[in-house]
Amino acid sequence: MKSKTQALSREAALIAALHERFGPAPPEVILGIGDDCAAISLDGSDYFLWTMDTLVEWVHFDLSYTPLEKLGWKALAVNLSDIAAMGGEPRYALLSLGWPPRRDRSGALTLADGLARAAREYGVAVIGGDTVASPGGLAVTLTLTGVVDAAQMLRRAGAQAGDLVYVTGTLGEAAAGLEILKRGVEMDQELKEALIEAHLAPRPQLQAGRVLAREGLATALIDLSDGVATDLSHLCRASGVGARIRGAAVPISTGLAAAAPLLGRDPLQLALTGGEDYQLLFTCPPALAASLPRAFSRAGLAPPRALGEIVAGAGVMLVTEEGEVDISGRGYDHFRLDQKEEEI
Amino acid sequence: MKSKTQALSREAALIAALHERFGPAPPEVILGIGDDCAAISLDGSDYFLWTMDTLVEWVHFDLSYTPLEKLGWKALAVNLSDIAAMGGEPRYALLSLGWPPRRDRSGALTLADGLARAAREYGVAVIGGDTVASPGGLAVTLTLTGVVDAAQMLRRAGAQAGDLVYVTGTLGEAAAGLEILKRGVEMDQELKEALIEAHLAPRPQLQAGRVLAREGLATALIDLSDGVATDLSHLCRASGVGARIRGAAVPISTGLAAAAPLLGRDPLQLALTGGEDYQLLFTCPPALAASLPRAFSRAGLAPPRALGEIVAGAGVMLVTEEGEVDISGRGYDHFRLDQKEEEI
Repeated sequence: MKSKTQALSREAALIAALHERFGPAPPEVILGIGDDCAAISLDGSDYFLWTMDTLVEWVHFDLSYTPLEKLGWKALAVNLSDIAAMGGEPRYALLSLGWPPRRDRSGALTLADGLARAAREYGVAVIGGDTVASPGGLAVTLTLTGVVDAAQMLRRAGAQAGDLVYVTGTLGEAAAGLEILKRGVEMDQELKEALIEAHLAPRPQLQAGRVLAREGLATALIDLSDGVATDLSHLCRASGVGARIRGAAVPISTGLAAAAPLLGRDPLQLALTGGEDYQLLFTCPPALAASLPRAFSRAGLAPPRALGEIVAGAGVMLVTEEGEVDISGRGYDHFRLDQKEEEI
Repeated sequence: MKSKTQALSREAALIAALHERFGPAPPEVILGIGDDCAAISLDGSDYFLWTMDTLVEWVHFDLSYTPLEKLGWKALAVNLSDIAAMGGEPRYALLSLGWPPRRDRSGALTLADGLARAAREYGVAVIGGDTVASPGGLAVTLTLTGVVDAAQMLRRAGAQAGDLVYVTGTLGEAAAGLEILKRGVEMDQELKEALIEAHLAPRPQLQAGRVLAREGLATALIDLSDGVATDLSHLCRASGVGARIRGAAVPISTGLAAAAPLLGRDPLQLALTGGEDYQLLFTCPPALAASLPRAFSRAGLAPPRALGEIVAGAGVMLVTEEGEVDISGRGYDHFRLDQKEEEI
């Protein structure tokens, strides 16, 4: 755990150092580094949203258990999730595909089929891009634009002490699916396939992001790419607050609850640190919380689940029957309440 | 040669097949696949330009002779050249940096220094991006936006029979610089450094592109990334015409003329097929040709050089004292007029 936490902070330090090199952004750049998308104020009342994400073979996926069609879907989905995290609507994408020279080129078309399926489902036009040889392994970079009304845009900053913390769906299934793909486990076939699908083909929560932005129901918003522990820490740091979440309130599906013991994993741990759920995590003032179920229901969405609340201070505390523990920044990896600190 | 030509057409076929998957673009997308940038009609009189280019270790650069600072410059320069090729002005960029885990991370800051230097020189704001681990080698993806007045935008299509073919500067130096870096050759130190600099730190011709667009002096425009033989073929195909260029008119610097024999290379071959010059190649109606020198001079630019003319038909013919040869699509590699066809 320690090495991963250090890796995450090294990453953040590197990105900060890189952007120091690039100097201050011009005034029309509303958001540069430090949120899910860059946001630029063009003429008119909309902000232009812009993101780019790269998936790299052996880092983000393994082709021994990742069908290329699903990889194409996911490459767009992770970018769509960044647009969702601003409350925006996606528009146009460019694809840069790094293809290993020795890999059959017809696979690139299979990947494109999955990408095109996601593009149709979420109303994105893929309008350009290129292919390059990539001797070091397959790499898929997508860059995606979107728009959001300037008055509606949501960001990581904005949460206030007293706000409630919500998530748009159950957590940890993608992490369980990855474990199943890596290790292979005997379990009910239908359950196994559902968990694997959660990992391979996440569904970006664009509609939920739109509901929150349009109806002004969130004070801060982030998408769950690295897990609640890490991503709620990002939101808290951007907002200058802390958070307390209740272990018993973390939404865990019956499927995950059934699968976790077979994987030898704690479902709460998978839910909080597994990553790649691509649900939205947001904060809502208590006075508006009663409006959430109806607003989500009108959009055909299940109601969001409250996890806990924003508090003054810093850090993310997890409260369980065993006590309280600071889980700030613990993404992508194990943590256990009973671990000694030096093991974490 | 044959295998490279086949590789180029395989690449084009793959890109075409990919984009078939993505279906037709919505009507506001003025240009999708098949030009240097995508162009989208937003509100107002400007088109939004958008490009993305990736440089991959061992494919596009070798770190044994490529300083990271220069690589950062070049990663932005090749994207800027795409904006220049539309007559546009660059605006904002995002960086996705794939960094090998075992490489010293301080090198990423050196790369960013070069990128930031190019950004300052050409008025680009780098406003976001991310870093990912890249076990297969360093990869730099930049995505860049720009704007151009809708009435001024230049594209690959538009050349007409009778138009003259021009280039904005001398050709082949970047290719000679690459040969020197790869093989090491004894020659005048100052000349050697100038040729190497042409390869490592190309200068995108944004001002020339703006002059041509603003003053309506070009019917078609492309940047020279792959060499005249390949890129003029692209322009001709997009325009539905052919071209004849005169070997004696191809601008070759005295430096290249001096260096080529030491490299055992034909300077004309380097100039036509070397690639990576990032000069602009454009077509101009004869009636407007007299205006070019003054328009370029007012912008502080050397006059463009006429290479030949656009003709009805297809293909790119090179005319020399030895006769005529079709050089369509011969980029990045040797060709010789005296080679038998099966060797090409």
